Amino acid sequence: MSTIEKPYVLGMDIGGTNSVFGIVDADAHILSTGSVKTQEYKVFEEYVDAVCERFVPMILEVGGFSKIRGFGIGAPNGNYYNGTIEFAPNLPWKDVLPLAKAFSDKLGIPVKVTNDANAAAIGEMTYGAARGMKNFIEITLGTGVGSGIVVNGQLVYGHDGFAGELGHVCVDRSENARPCGCGRKGCLEAYCSATGVARTARERLAKGDKSLLRKIEGDITSKDVYDAAVQGDAVALDIFNYTGEILGAALADFVAFSAPEAIILFGGLTKSGEYIMKPIREALEDHVLRIWKGKVKVLVSQLKDADAAVLGASALAWED
Amino acid sequence: MSTIEKPYVLGMDIGGTNSVFGIVDADAHILSTGSVKTQEYKVFEEYVDAVCERFVPMILEVGGFSKIRGFGIGAPNGNYYNGTIEFAPNLPWKDVLPLAKAFSDKLGIPVKVTNDANAAAIGEMTYGAARGMKNFIEITLGTGVGSGIVVNGQLVYGHDGFAGELGHVCVDRSENARPCGCGRKGCLEAYCSATGVARTARERLAKGDKSLLRKIEGDITSKDVYDAAVQGDAVALDIFNYTGEILGAALADFVAFSAPEAIILFGGLTKSGEYIMKPIREALEDHVLRIWKGKVKVLVSQLKDADAAVLGASALAWED
Repeated sequence: MSTIEKPYVLGMDIGGTNSVFGIVDADAHILSTGSVKTQEYKVFEEYVDAVCERFVPMILEVGGFSKIRGFGIGAPNGNYYNGTIEFAPNLPWKDVLPLAKAFSDKLGIPVKVTNDANAAAIGEMTYGAARGMKNFIEITLGTGVGSGIVVNGQLVYGHDGFAGELGHVCVDRSENARPCGCGRKGCLEAYCSATGVARTARERLAKGDKSLLRKIEGDITSKDVYDAAVQGDAVALDIFNYTGEILGAALADFVAFSAPEAIILFGGLTKSGEYIMKPIREALEDHVLRIWKGKVKVLVSQLKDADAAVLGASALAWED
Repeated sequence: MSTIEKPYVLGMDIGGTNSVFGIVDADAHILSTGSVKTQEYKVFEEYVDAVCERFVPMILEVGGFSKIRGFGIGAPNGNYYNGTIEFAPNLPWKDVLPLAKAFSDKLGIPVKVTNDANAAAIGEMTYGAARGMKNFIEITLGTGVGSGIVVNGQLVYGHDGFAGELGHVCVDRSENARPCGCGRKGCLEAYCSATGVARTARERLAKGDKSLLRKIEGDITSKDVYDAAVQGDAVALDIFNYTGEILGAALADFVAFSAPEAIILFGGLTKSGEYIMKPIREALEDHVLRIWKGKVKVLVSQLKDADAAVLGASALAWED
C-alpha cells in the first residue's frame, strides 16, 4: 500500500491525565488533534467510545478511512507484541486490556501499541534527530526516566515486549541509595527524573548554602534550577553537575551494551541546554570504555514537546 | 546454496596462545581440527600462510572447497562489519588487520569475523542452549568477562561492530572499587573473571579465617574454590556467594536493557554448578524489576568447552 494511496497515519498518546490524538502525514505535519481526559472514563469500553467519537469526524474531514494507513498508540506499559496495556499504574483501568483490538475493531484499520518511550524513539527515527540512524538510544527524562533502544534499525522489544527499562538500571548499590518508585533502590530514575532533580535540590539546600532556589515554593523543577543557574547560582550549577555525572556514567554502560551511534535525550531536563548537557557529555567520556571515547554523540531530541508523543506514536503506523 | 550442496563450514578461534580451526557439519559435528601457535608468527601474512598450509589438506580430505559454505573466525577485537582485527592486545600483530580479506583471498570462500564472545553466542543459538531463542544474552566467564547479545534473532554489533562489552559495565561506583585491566574501576570483569575470583579469594583469606584454600599455591582458581566448597569450606562458599551476588545484580540491569528469554553463562566458573548458579539466580531475582521476576532463565552453556570456540566461530558461516 503506497503512501500516496494512504497518505496519513493516526497517533495517540495515552497519559495518566490526558489522551491526545492526531492525524499525521509523512512529513510529520500534524493535520489535526483532539483529546479526552483519561481519568473521566473508569470503564475501558467507554474510554474507547469517547476517543472514537471525537476522532472519527477528524478522519472523515481529511478524506475518510481509505486515506489512513494505520494507528499507532503510545501508552504506559503498552506491549507491542500483543497490543495490550498491562497493569499500568497511572491509568484508571487495571488488568490486561486489549487496546489494539478494541480500536481496530471499531475503526477497521491496523493498530499498533508500544510504551511512550519506545514511541518517542520511533518518532525520533522517523521524523527527528535519529533520521538515518540504525543504532541509537532515546532516553526520556520526565516524571520518570524511560528509554527506547534501536538496534539494526529495529526497536528492541525483547522476549516479552517490555525491553528498554533503562530508568531502572542501578546507579548506586550502596546502603544510602535513593528509593525508587519501583520499590527498589538506586535506580537511575531516582536521580535523573523530575522527582530526582527535585530531591537533589532539597538535599543540596539542606546543606545551608545561599541559593536563589530557596525562594521556590513546592517541588523545585529543572526550569527553576535553570533560571537560577543562568544567574550564576552555585547550588543550581551543582545540581546540574551532580545529575549530569550520574546520567553520563550510566550512559557509558549503555554504550557497552549496544554501541549506539548516538544517545538522544528527550524531555524537560534537556531544556537547560549546556548546563546539563556538558556534565552529561563529560561524564560519558570520562566513564566510557576506551574504544568508544570521542565516538558517541549525545544529542537533544528534535521532536517538539507538544507534538512529540502523538508524532512518535503515529510513526508506529508507518511500519510494515 | 543449499546445505546439501555445501554441507560444511570452517571455524577458527584465534587465541593469544593457540589458533584452533576445524571443519563442522550442520549437526555440530567437528569432522577434523588443527592448530597453530599464534605467537610463532610475528608477521601476519606468515600466520595466514601457516593456517592455510594446515587447513587446506583437511578441506581436500572432506571433498574440497565445493563442499564448504564459508569460514567463520572468532578473534579478540574481531569486527564483524569490516572483517578486521583492531589492536588486539594479546595478539602479535598490531594495527588494523584485514583478517577476513586475507583468508577469503587465499581460500576463495566467504569469510566472516567476530569476537570470541559473539562467536559463543552464535554457536549457542545454532548448536546449543539457545536453539530456537530470538532474545538472549551469552556471558563468557573466562580470563575476562565477555558477552554476546542476541535481539530479534540477530547478534547485536552496534554502530561500530563492538557492541556487547558487558564485562565493562560498572558494578561498583565507590572509591574502593577494584581496578580493571581496561584502565577503569569497578567493572564486572574485575569481580567475575578468573582474575576477579582469585582476587576475591585473596581478600577473603586476608581476613584470617580457617580455609582449605590456604594450601593452594599461586592464583586460586574457581576449580580450587569448588573443591573446597564441596568439603564445606565456609570461605569457599562465601567466595561463590560474593561473586554470584555481583553477577546476578548486574544481570538484572542487562534484563532491563533487552528483556531476554534467557541469560546463558559459559566458561570455567559455571563448572562449579549450583555453588555459583544459586547465588546468581537469587541475586537476579532479588534485583530485577518486578515485571521480570520469575521470568528470565539463567542457563549454563551447552557448548562443550573444548569445541565451543571453533563451533561458535563456524556458526557465523551458516548465516546468509
